[in-house]
Order: sequence, then C-alpha cells, then structure tokens
Amino acid sequence: MAPRPDADPTDAAAGADPESAPDSDLDALATDYGSLAAELDARGAVGFVAVGDRFDDDLRYLTRFSGPDRAYAFVFAAGEATLCAPALFDDQARREFPGGTVRTADQGAPAGVRAAAALDARGVDGGTLLVPQGIPHDAAVRLENAGFDLESTAAVREARRVKADAELDRLRRVQRAALRGVARAEAILAAGEADGDRVTWNGGPLSTERLRRQVNGVLAAHGVRDAGNTVVGCGPTAADLHFTGLDAVRPGETVLLDVSPRGPDGYYGDVTRTFAVDSGGGWERRAYVAVEAAREAALDELAAGVPASTVHEEAAAELAAHGFRVDGADRGFVHSTGHGVGVSLHEAPSLSTSGSDELEAGNVVTVEPGVYDPETGGVRLEDLAVVTDDGYELLGEYPRSLVPHDRG
Amino acid sequence: MAPRPDADPTDAAAGADPESAPDSDLDALATDYGSLAAELDARGAVGFVAVGDRFDDDLRYLTRFSGPDRAYAFVFAAGEATLCAPALFDDQARREFPGGTVRTADQGAPAGVRAAAALDARGVDGGTLLVPQGIPHDAAVRLENAGFDLESTAAVREARRVKADAELDRLRRVQRAALRGVARAEAILAAGEADGDRVTWNGGPLSTERLRRQVNGVLAAHGVRDAGNTVVGCGPTAADLHFTGLDAVRPGETVLLDVSPRGPDGYYGDVTRTFAVDSGGGWERRAYVAVEAAREAALDELAAGVPASTVHEEAAAELAAHGFRVDGADRGFVHSTGHGVGVSLHEAPSLSTSGSDELEAGNVVTVEPGVYDPETGGVRLEDLAVVTDDGYELLGEYPRSLVPHDRG
Repeated sequence: MAPRPDADPTDAAAGADPESAPDSDLDALATDYGSLAAELDARGAVGFVAVGDRFDDDLRYLTRFSGPDRAYAFVFAAGEATLCAPALFDDQARREFPGGTVRTADQGAPAGVRAAAALDARGVDGGTLLVPQGIPHDAAVRLENAGFDLESTAAVREARRVKADAELDRLRRVQRAALRGVARAEAILAAGEADGDRVTWNGGPLSTERLRRQVNGVLAAHGVRDAGNTVVGCGPTAADLHFTGLDAVRPGETVLLDVSPRGPDGYYGDVTRTFAVDSGGGWERRAYVAVEAAREAALDELAAGVPASTVHEEAAAELAAHGFRVDGADRGFVHSTGHGVGVSLHEAPSLSTSGSDELEAGNVVTVEPGVYDPETGGVRLEDLAVVTDDGYELLGEYPRSLVPHDRG
Repeated sequence: MAPRPDADPTDAAAGADPESAPDSDLDALATDYGSLAAELDARGAVGFVAVGDRFDDDLRYLTRFSGPDRAYAFVFAAGEATLCAPALFDDQARREFPGGTVRTADQGAPAGVRAAAALDARGVDGGTLLVPQGIPHDAAVRLENAGFDLESTAAVREARRVKADAELDRLRRVQRAALRGVARAEAILAAGEADGDRVTWNGGPLSTERLRRQVNGVLAAHGVRDAGNTVVGCGPTAADLHFTGLDAVRPGETVLLDVSPRGPDGYYGDVTRTFAVDSGGGWERRAYVAVEAAREAALDELAAGVPASTVHEEAAAELAAHGFRVDGADRGFVHSTGHGVGVSLHEAPSLSTSGSDELEAGNVVTVEPGVYDPETGGVRLEDLAVVTDDGYELLGEYPRSLVPHDRG
C-alpha cells in the first residue's frame, strides 16, 4: 500500500496573497552604474564587459535580466549600458534591463564577439577593458583578439555590498517566506510524537525529506523557490553543514533547518533554527544556550564602522566561554559568523577572522553562530540583518526555542 | 480583507511517496571518465581541468558534487580523477564524488592554483592541458603560469549526450513530478469559470502566478524544485516564450504551461501543455491541430542515425502545411523543435536547422513544436523522449487536449 500523502503545506501559508507576484508591486530595481563609471575613470579604462549566463550573479545585478542558460554579455562604455541578449529573449530583456540599450544584432555569435561589436558601436575599439576575474576564458581571448588589454576589477562585487531600499524590500519579502517555511517545519515537529527511536507525524515516521518537502511547499505557495538550499539534518547529519539528503528524525536529537530561498527578482533569504523533539536536555541544551549567547554578542557588535572580524571574534569568544572549541577542528564552532546576502546567497562582507573590512550601513548579513559534534548533532541559529549607522535591523523576526511550538 | 489562501497543491500530489527521497533508492550515478582519457590520448595532452561553482553543469556531471556557490576544481590526469573541494564540504564531497580522490589541502587558495597542485601531486607539471572553453579566465591564467599550455575541449559536452540507465531513471522521475504539476494546473483550469473578461477559481480571479504557485507546490511535494523555470502565460504572454510574470487568465485565450523542474541529482524534466478555458474555437483551435500534427511528424522521425535537422524540418513542414509561418519572424514557428536535456535544461543535441549531428541511441530530447501570434497567444506541446535504435520512448506520457480536464 502506498503511504498516504502528507498534509497541505499551504496550511502554514495562510496570508500568502495569491495575487501578489513577481515583485511587480515593489519599486523598480535600478542598478547604479556610477561606481562602474568611477572605476573606469580611476583606472584609465575605456569600458567594462561581463559575460555569463543566468547563473552569474554579477550579471543578474548589472542587468536584472533573468536570461537564458547560455552566455550573454553586458557592456558599459562611454557612459552607456548595453545588454547583448539572444533574439528569442528580446521582449524579456527590454522589460527587465534598466540600462540604455538591448542589442540582439549578431545573435548566435559568441558573447565575447558580441561584446566587442557593442563596444565598437560606441566608438571604442581598443585600450584597457575591465572585466570580472572569472569572465569565461574564451570571451576574454576574443576581447583580446579584438584589440583590448584586459584587467580585472572587483567593482561590481563591491557595488553590491550596500543595498538600496528597493533591494531591502525584496530581501524582506523573501525572508518572510523563509520564516513561514520554518514555521511549517516547527509546527510539524511540535505535532511529532516519539515512538521508540523514531519521531512519527501524520501517521508515519518523520524524515528530513518529508520536512524539506513541506517547507518547500510553503515557499512555493509564497512565490519563492527553494533553490536547492533547504538544509534539514537530524543528529549527526545536523553536524554536516549542508545536508540535503534523507535521514530519520529521532527523538532527543537536534533537527537543524537552514532555509535559503530565492525570490523572483533574484534576492535570497536565509534563516536557520534548531529544534529537538523530546529533548533530554543534554548536549543540545548546553549548545543552544551557548549559541543564543553568541548570537546576542554578535548582533550587539553590528553597526557601521565596526570591523567585520570583530563580530566574528565576539561570537567565538562567547562560544569559547561556554566551553565549546572555536579552533576550526571538526567540532565546536567550525565556520564563520556570517556572510553578506543579496543576489548571491554568499557575498561580501564576510563576518570572519579574515573579514578586515569595516561594516557599512546597508550591508545585509547573516548572523549564524553554531556548534557541532559529528557524533551527536548541531545547533545553529541564523538571522538576517541590515547594518545601520548605529546598529542593525533584523529583516524578519522569528522566535527561538529548542522545544518546537505550533506558532499558528 | 486579505484574499483567502489557495487550496492545497498536494491534492494533486497523491502518490507522492513521502519517504522516497534524494534518489538514494536508485542505482548510483557514475561518471565514465573513459571518454576524457581517450581525448587526452588523441590530443597528446597531460590532463584535463574544469573549474566552476555549483551552477556549472559540466562540473556537476564530472563530480556529482552539489558543491558551494564559489569556485572549485576537477582534475583528471594519469588515469585518476580528483575533486579539489572546500574543507567545509569535505564529507559531502566524499559522499557524492565517484572519482578517486577528494583533496581539501590548499583550501582557500584560488581554484586554478589548487588544480595545478593536484596535477603536481600526480607528477604532472607541464605540457598541454585540456579545459572547457568557458573555464574562468583567472583559473586559465594561473594554470598557464604554472607551466601548462591550454587547449579547449568539448569532450565533456559530447560525453553528456548519451545517457546511461541510471541517468534515465532520474530523468523519468523528475519528468513524472513535472507531469503531476501540469495535472494540477489542468485541474484548476477545468474548475475555472469564465466571469466577464476573467477566469475565476477558488473564489477569486485566476492569474498566471496563482497557477505557478500551485504547480510549484506539487513539484515541492514530489521532492523536485521548480528551478525558476515554471513558465505560465495567457494570450499574448503565452507568445512570450519564457514568461514568468503576472498576468490574468482570460476566457478563450491560450494558457501555456512549460514546467522544467530539477531533481535532487541535478537532472531536469521538461513538459509543455496548452489549454483554453471556454475556447471559442478560433486561432487556438487551428494552432492546436497544427502543433499536434507537427509533434507527430517530429516524433515519427526520432531514431538513432537520423540527422537532428530532419526532425526539425519535418515539424516545420507540417506547420507550414497548416498555414503557419516558419521563417523565423515574430509569429508562427519561431524556435527549434527541441533540445537535449540532462544535468542542463538545454544541452546537445539540438533539433534545429543547424543540428547536423545524427541522433544516437540514449540521446534525451524535447520535442516541442509551437506557434505564436504576439497579439493572440501561443500553443506549444512538449514531451521528453529518449532516442532508441529504431525509434524512441517517451519519458512519461500526458494526455493532450485544448479543453482542460480534471485528470484526478
């Protein structure tokens, strides 16, 4: 007999507005090319070229184009931004690209050739061209063959660090969906019952995969996608930082949920909560108290002007004070305290020992201390915050409790 | 007052087995490095290197590693495959990588540097190195600086064309989920009611976004992800080939659903159906008859040894015979007849005029003729087929009807 299907993931999606949609009700996303223009001036360069496909996040930021899975090009020169798009995506490119020109001439030619033609159309046919360091090698070679000297620039990655209001709107919205996903999983765990060495729910044994499908169903109901990032682990697999496989949910063990969906305009959310069904109050209780204290210590440091490494050091000091290792071994606090979030799930700034940059107002970062024991489990708590001049604002709030509750 | 939430997308998910999961019950995915070894021999090269992140599909195929969103490297030399993975992903890399060696030494160094070190560890420190043409430029430069001459190879893309049984199992499974998603949308359209210039369902006006969320909820319930590819258009937006925005569903207009989810092991599904609520039997009826005939004509050609272009030409001839333009203007049949599907949604072979390659047994291709009128709508029917020695096998079957039905 086939197992019966699980209950409605949209039970938890009450409030999802079926008519609200691809962020079309929010202020339009612009991209300020001013920092590119300034970089060209400073470096004595004639233009900037990026080449990639829909999975290239710099290109998504520069063009807002949710293009195809083959290479296209963005060109900035003589104060003008140009998108070289496939002809079959012409309408979509014109709808999405905030820059000046969509070129579909030469489509079918390699993206590097098309970029050189777009430069030529602006009267630029030689000199220093700035490119991201990871530009596809074939495109780089074609640009060199067209007479340009290439130098790499991190200007786009830098420009992405500080978020505009329209970006914050999107980050808040996708984070709200992520929090609803966590609420669904927490409600399931609250209803779960210990039965020997398994937790059962809805008439059958509960697994990380059943939880994941329920969370992802809620994300879908809110118009965002799970993006392959819905991490659910239990016990030892909760100590495996990116576990997306199948495991049983067992009583007394930590259930770690890390939910990082992507919204329709490309911005990510990111939240982690940890629960235990029928906790005996051992390792996981001590770990939870320590991680909550580290979270508080890290958040207390967030403000414009603070070195990113300071945030990490404060979190690590708190975990060490609670008796957990912070030396990068395979147990204790094994990762950094956080990372920037935008059109990439992981971007600048990094809240880590090597994060020597100062935080700026408008940085959006995760704060996610955690401790792990490969034999026992893992506890991580993660929130998303925007840095302000004198502190921070959480992008969405969600309660913390090792014991799961139905938050209704 | 907030609109009430939409009904349970898992109504249509009956049969989704909550315990079946990340394809762990299927035969393990191997990757045959034999074609790489043969290419090295034929070209007199000492090794092969690929560098990319989790969004690089060649790398996914070579490593089976669902790695991080930053660059890592794959190296094949001296008959051995090596994955240079981030230390934080060590467990995951060892679990997923079917090759010989996972290296986490030098982690933190640029991927190109790590690849050169892995080559050196195999006693390879100079000579011709084969790389994909789109290898990141910085990695290419670092390999050149380490003493290698780079030449590009399409060997990986070529190796991916013919699917092994374990790959077909995954393609069938993700396609089954995609078909359940279409069934959900069709059931909603069957229950939809014409009300003036809108179609209403579940007490409110129906939109492309409500349909998309319902489809994506079903995909989530089946353990696959929508991957941002759930295209739903109505009328003129159905003629916009990749519409993922918000539009009303209107009576008498074509509703086009193109569902291309990705399964846990990275393989895609791809199916399109077109419906109309309360069709008056005009353009859309003629278009539907023509597209069905073109589909039949294209499928009839599928077999090992047939030039890919022949399949396209037969579909185009059928559409032309039905009075539709096939000359690449913005109306009529404006795209190719199909494309390969695997760990990329679009890969070789291409069923198009330029597709001069012969089909091989084990190719998995879409067959998706369609006709469009930018003012009126679009009709497309798409199925996924594996080519066999004497014909083809559909990877999942789904009924065809312009009038939507509840398929229960």
